[in-house]
Amino acid sequence: MRAVDLIRKKRDAGEHSRDEINFLIRGYTRGEIPDYQMAAWLMATWIRGLSRPEIAALTEAMLHSGEVVTFPELPGKKVDKHSTGGVGDKTSLILAPIVAAGGVSVPMISGRGLGHTGGTLDKLESIPGFKTALTLADFRRVLAECGMALIGQTAEIAPADKIIYALRDATATVENVGLICASIMSKKLAEGIDALVLDVKTGSGAFMQKEEDSVRLAELMVETAQRMGKKAVALITDMDQPLGRFAGHSHEVAESVEVLKGRGATDLRDLSIELSAWMFYLGERTKSVDEGRVLAQELVASGEALEKFRQGISLQGGDARVVDDYSVLPRASHHTEVQSSASGFLAATNCMEFGVALAMLGGGREKKEDKIDPGVGLEFHKRIGDRVAAGQTLVTIYYNSDTKLAEAKQRIRESFQISDQQPPAKKLIRRLVGA
Amino acid sequence: MRAVDLIRKKRDAGEHSRDEINFLIRGYTRGEIPDYQMAAWLMATWIRGLSRPEIAALTEAMLHSGEVVTFPELPGKKVDKHSTGGVGDKTSLILAPIVAAGGVSVPMISGRGLGHTGGTLDKLESIPGFKTALTLADFRRVLAECGMALIGQTAEIAPADKIIYALRDATATVENVGLICASIMSKKLAEGIDALVLDVKTGSGAFMQKEEDSVRLAELMVETAQRMGKKAVALITDMDQPLGRFAGHSHEVAESVEVLKGRGATDLRDLSIELSAWMFYLGERTKSVDEGRVLAQELVASGEALEKFRQGISLQGGDARVVDDYSVLPRASHHTEVQSSASGFLAATNCMEFGVALAMLGGGREKKEDKIDPGVGLEFHKRIGDRVAAGQTLVTIYYNSDTKLAEAKQRIRESFQISDQQPPAKKLIRRLVGA
Repeated sequence: MRAVDLIRKKRDAGEHSRDEINFLIRGYTRGEIPDYQMAAWLMATWIRGLSRPEIAALTEAMLHSGEVVTFPELPGKKVDKHSTGGVGDKTSLILAPIVAAGGVSVPMISGRGLGHTGGTLDKLESIPGFKTALTLADFRRVLAECGMALIGQTAEIAPADKIIYALRDATATVENVGLICASIMSKKLAEGIDALVLDVKTGSGAFMQKEEDSVRLAELMVETAQRMGKKAVALITDMDQPLGRFAGHSHEVAESVEVLKGRGATDLRDLSIELSAWMFYLGERTKSVDEGRVLAQELVASGEALEKFRQGISLQGGDARVVDDYSVLPRASHHTEVQSSASGFLAATNCMEFGVALAMLGGGREKKEDKIDPGVGLEFHKRIGDRVAAGQTLVTIYYNSDTKLAEAKQRIRESFQISDQQPPAKKLIRRLVGA
Repeated sequence: MRAVDLIRKKRDAGEHSRDEINFLIRGYTRGEIPDYQMAAWLMATWIRGLSRPEIAALTEAMLHSGEVVTFPELPGKKVDKHSTGGVGDKTSLILAPIVAAGGVSVPMISGRGLGHTGGTLDKLESIPGFKTALTLADFRRVLAECGMALIGQTAEIAPADKIIYALRDATATVENVGLICASIMSKKLAEGIDALVLDVKTGSGAFMQKEEDSVRLAELMVETAQRMGKKAVALITDMDQPLGRFAGHSHEVAESVEVLKGRGATDLRDLSIELSAWMFYLGERTKSVDEGRVLAQELVASGEALEKFRQGISLQGGDARVVDDYSVLPRASHHTEVQSSASGFLAATNCMEFGVALAMLGGGREKKEDKIDPGVGLEFHKRIGDRVAAGQTLVTIYYNSDTKLAEAKQRIRESFQISDQQPPAKKLIRRLVGA
């Protein structure tokens, strides 16, 4: 078998066999197939697409490029959640303690933010001392002790994904549902989970802006998980506006604690409870999603979820006082406001632009090497459908450096659409896939 | 400007500006854009295609990646011919001396054989002592002295093409008319010529098997040459069977000398005269192609073309006795025959397979690093339309090693199609483009 022949096959819209996919992934991971051949194959694949059997084969090949973890020592089921990412999406910080407090283990391997989206690891690292780079042994120990652990991708897990993702990033071959599915699922299936709840974002702040694309990705991921013997469901959820009231690392940690205290923004609370409910149900902790919802609410109301978060932070080296005192988090020194220039109703937002503006201010990464300023953040005062008066504050910007402040402010201002007519209400959860 | 954005643009079927093409080619030639980004761009380009302005911009960018030669010291016009390659195509060896003998200079930079096609340089190097790796200074000197010089690509000429071609070869992005056009024309336009005659092959032994593809490539090349102020014409010629009676390096040199002596196979002689006639006409040596044809025939009949070949060989260090004595050429030690298993008419050949079989026997390159055995060859005894009796010899194989002989024989045998009905005659010159 020769790589050039497989590139030609995909170029001509052919379908690869399982052996051919294995040859490519194994060869590339071992350094036998050079970057330039993989890059040409990725572009051919981006344009021609992958069939469902090809996606399954690719996922498995990438999964088996590294270690597949199992947790025979843990009682009960292991369940994880994965979100395709957006602005203000901090549900992992909320649902992991809820679900762990309910007795279902959450071995969560998360990513970092890039471009307009934030990353769970970066958010957690705004808690002083919090370590996300655990060894597999420490991951196992933390999990055994408190039922949850949130870490970054280790060198042992799906190494093929790591190098292929870097290449995709440099060759404009990221946004393809087959490649995205294989990338996500190879990592998630290596975590030793029994079930996976997927939160696939749709709308102006999501990678997949059209609902049909989000549904297609959701279907592929659910099918891939099920094919590998895992329970899975996907919720297609709204990302036409930021989730919750805050975006930015310290701010999102504080907002997550608020939700665990039974407060916080309605949409964020509702989605966190809903995802937790599905995790309880797929983890066979409750007989229905409804029961799962009740359990999740009880664990918040009783303070057990908050205590679990406190325990988890401690076990990963973080300053658990954050739960009682947000001032331990890094803060920005300045703030300023973006006001509405018109009166009417907030009709729509170009949500991705909020993430881009946040990154410009240092609260995100434009390039992978960028350092994040965790105190920088955005506070959103209006939701779609709200009445807005000219001069009213739409966003408070918390910042340290004003180098790009004017540009960021303008981006934010231009990303709000004010209309005379009140828009129809947006559903937070648009659809269920695989349920 | 960032390479990744240009890759994305072409991926999404966008059209590049001249500046964007320059950025890519300059960046890649200087090593600032890595192989993997160029590979992804090449695949996107292969699939999405290039517009005519993009092809022109690409050709110019590659042309200006190196030196553009001029020959102010040579009297009269400088004209070259380029063939897209096939099996038994040796017209360069015949027309260069004819045209030079007629007073039009031929500064010819040729290539090597790869896969099923032979290369002019390899054929010339079967003449003992013949050097094709001349410096630009020596190229100039030989040209001034005898009006013709046949050399290989130098490091100074279109270096971008050299590295891009190697990458295309490894990434299955060779067969795209836009990329082929830019590759050929950037080299040819760097040679300091006034006019170019293109021989674009079509049929089962050509890179472009369908006539419409050959015509499209021919149109692009003619248009590109004219856009750069060069006269150009393309002949679309038959490659449904080998050109002439022989394929293989020594054999093709001897056959070329035969044609220069007024003998040899009709199709080879006719095409060589026709291409020479166009070179005389575009080089403003004759007022018409008809006059050019008469002049070419006279130069063969008078022996002047043969003498020019003798002189050219000498000047490039070769043993000019080859013109009188073919035994100075390397020969294969053995020969065997492939016989027809059926009676009828030779209806068609899978011509590319002859070239592949020849390379298997050592008379060509399967990989770029392969050494060629110049004595190995094939002699074709039948032309399409000829009556064939079962048991009659179709091909004589001249070989040294029998390692792959059985496989080569079988490939050759299976590449003849014998039919009860006499097929319609094939036209050697199918079409003219740009005339």
